[in-house]
Amino acid sequence: MDSIKVFSPGSVTNLSCGYDILGFCLDKVGDTITVTKTPEKGVKISSIDKYNLPTNINQNVAGIAAQAMMKDINLDYGFDIKIKKGIKPGSGIGSSAASSAGVVFAINKLIDSPFSDIELIRFAMEGEKFVSGSYHADNVSPILLGGFTLVRSVKDLDIIKLPNPKGLIATIIRPEIELKTSDSRKVVKLKVTIDKMVQQSANLAAFISSLYTEDYDLMSNSIVDEIIEPDRALLIPEFYNIKDISIKSGAIACGISGSGPAIFALSKSNKTANVILNKVSSHFNSVNINYNGFVSIINSEGVKVID
Amino acid sequence: MDSIKVFSPGSVTNLSCGYDILGFCLDKVGDTITVTKTPEKGVKISSIDKYNLPTNINQNVAGIAAQAMMKDINLDYGFDIKIKKGIKPGSGIGSSAASSAGVVFAINKLIDSPFSDIELIRFAMEGEKFVSGSYHADNVSPILLGGFTLVRSVKDLDIIKLPNPKGLIATIIRPEIELKTSDSRKVVKLKVTIDKMVQQSANLAAFISSLYTEDYDLMSNSIVDEIIEPDRALLIPEFYNIKDISIKSGAIACGISGSGPAIFALSKSNKTANVILNKVSSHFNSVNINYNGFVSIINSEGVKVID
Repeated sequence: MDSIKVFSPGSVTNLSCGYDILGFCLDKVGDTITVTKTPEKGVKISSIDKYNLPTNINQNVAGIAAQAMMKDINLDYGFDIKIKKGIKPGSGIGSSAASSAGVVFAINKLIDSPFSDIELIRFAMEGEKFVSGSYHADNVSPILLGGFTLVRSVKDLDIIKLPNPKGLIATIIRPEIELKTSDSRKVVKLKVTIDKMVQQSANLAAFISSLYTEDYDLMSNSIVDEIIEPDRALLIPEFYNIKDISIKSGAIACGISGSGPAIFALSKSNKTANVILNKVSSHFNSVNINYNGFVSIINSEGVKVID
Repeated sequence: MDSIKVFSPGSVTNLSCGYDILGFCLDKVGDTITVTKTPEKGVKISSIDKYNLPTNINQNVAGIAAQAMMKDINLDYGFDIKIKKGIKPGSGIGSSAASSAGVVFAINKLIDSPFSDIELIRFAMEGEKFVSGSYHADNVSPILLGGFTLVRSVKDLDIIKLPNPKGLIATIIRPEIELKTSDSRKVVKLKVTIDKMVQQSANLAAFISSLYTEDYDLMSNSIVDEIIEPDRALLIPEFYNIKDISIKSGAIACGISGSGPAIFALSKSNKTANVILNKVSSHFNSVNINYNGFVSIINSEGVKVID
């Protein structure tokens, strides 16, 4: 095999109660990445179809992740990377992670999979570090493992694949503003009270339990964020109205996806997820804000080969 | 039925990663409480066998919990309470909670169980508030529900009974010092960094997952406390040596039980739990510190009627 094409999906992280450690994999929306072996050693990005992203491998997350991988193997050939972006950078649904994770997944397949999923997460995180300034595995983990994931430790690469309750479905809606992860991180307070920590961790713990027991009432009660959401919500136009509309339309919960501006709502049925999408769309139309929205299952498979 | 005798066990809370919200129920060590109907209305504590605890119902947790319960029902008779304490106050294994939970459980049984477990937790918490200054359900919940419990919200009384992995067993060892919960709470820092909050909540979330999956490696990695343990450990003689001995003897994890001074270790077998008890006992003997120790299963049943 000399060439491979993969589809690397978007991902939703934080989910209100799991700042920096919780995430799930989206379906259908993502990057399409073609990697081809080249006689020349090293990595080259020959094309990225949009968003003016740099093709310099030292300035592009996919190039950085691929180079991190190259350091661990000795090959007498190289790779050419072509990326068709399906996620706009700064959306809050893991645009950079889709490229980082997708490229290392593709290269690993091309060289007969010497690396485990956990090792691929380690390489993909190098791309994440480049954009956010520190190591995060919350987006790349669900892309590479599928479904819901919990990052217990980035340092130890202790990452848990969680259950994916049947029928759970997401509505994603993104007001058309760009919010850089680095800017969105700046509004997060550096310290929290012990009482808030206890409440936040109780919610996360309860959410984990709800995934195992498929207790949607508990899930609804636990997808709550009293620490980060109040500050980040200020950066997202109409956030509280969207949340209110989603909950009233039957969402289990609604919150900021990643560092925003994308907003996620979780529902128990495709029908509810689409009702939410329609109502939220109407609202954005009524206030003259451009937006982009879709419904997605929780993708258990994650990144995959498509050709 | 005019009289009932119940056994209300001790409990271990916090478990390193779940400060104020996580707990499990012990077996065999606990209070024996006899409640008898009286023609006179109201509640009376006619005897407590030791530790010079007050029998004044306004100064005793059992009396306070029972009175909270009385406010919600209209009875033309009352109750006499006799308590045989099996847990020394200030031990760190829920002495006050055993009395509070036991008495409301007993009264409820005597009056044909009009109250749910959750309502009993609400009454028992009044006793806890009296001793610690604020509402906590982390000790009373595992006593009343059995097994492991998670308190998502004290305010909403949202309390989750977690799985009890087969074969999991605890060693409890308590240096003979008294540590008041209120004093032990004073050393807890009021604020934590967001990074520590993320790490602590990741550990708690991973621990919850480990209970569902019976993944003992994950459990071991997640019973970690970088926030409270470092400060509270200073109040407990030989804590780090005990922890070291326990882990080296095969414990899954070891930490402070509740607010201390009791120390818990979790093991996968009765044999390991007893090896830990023996080795830790030898250590306390060698440094001339009095101690008290035992091995206990995780008690799935909780408080129970014994006569």
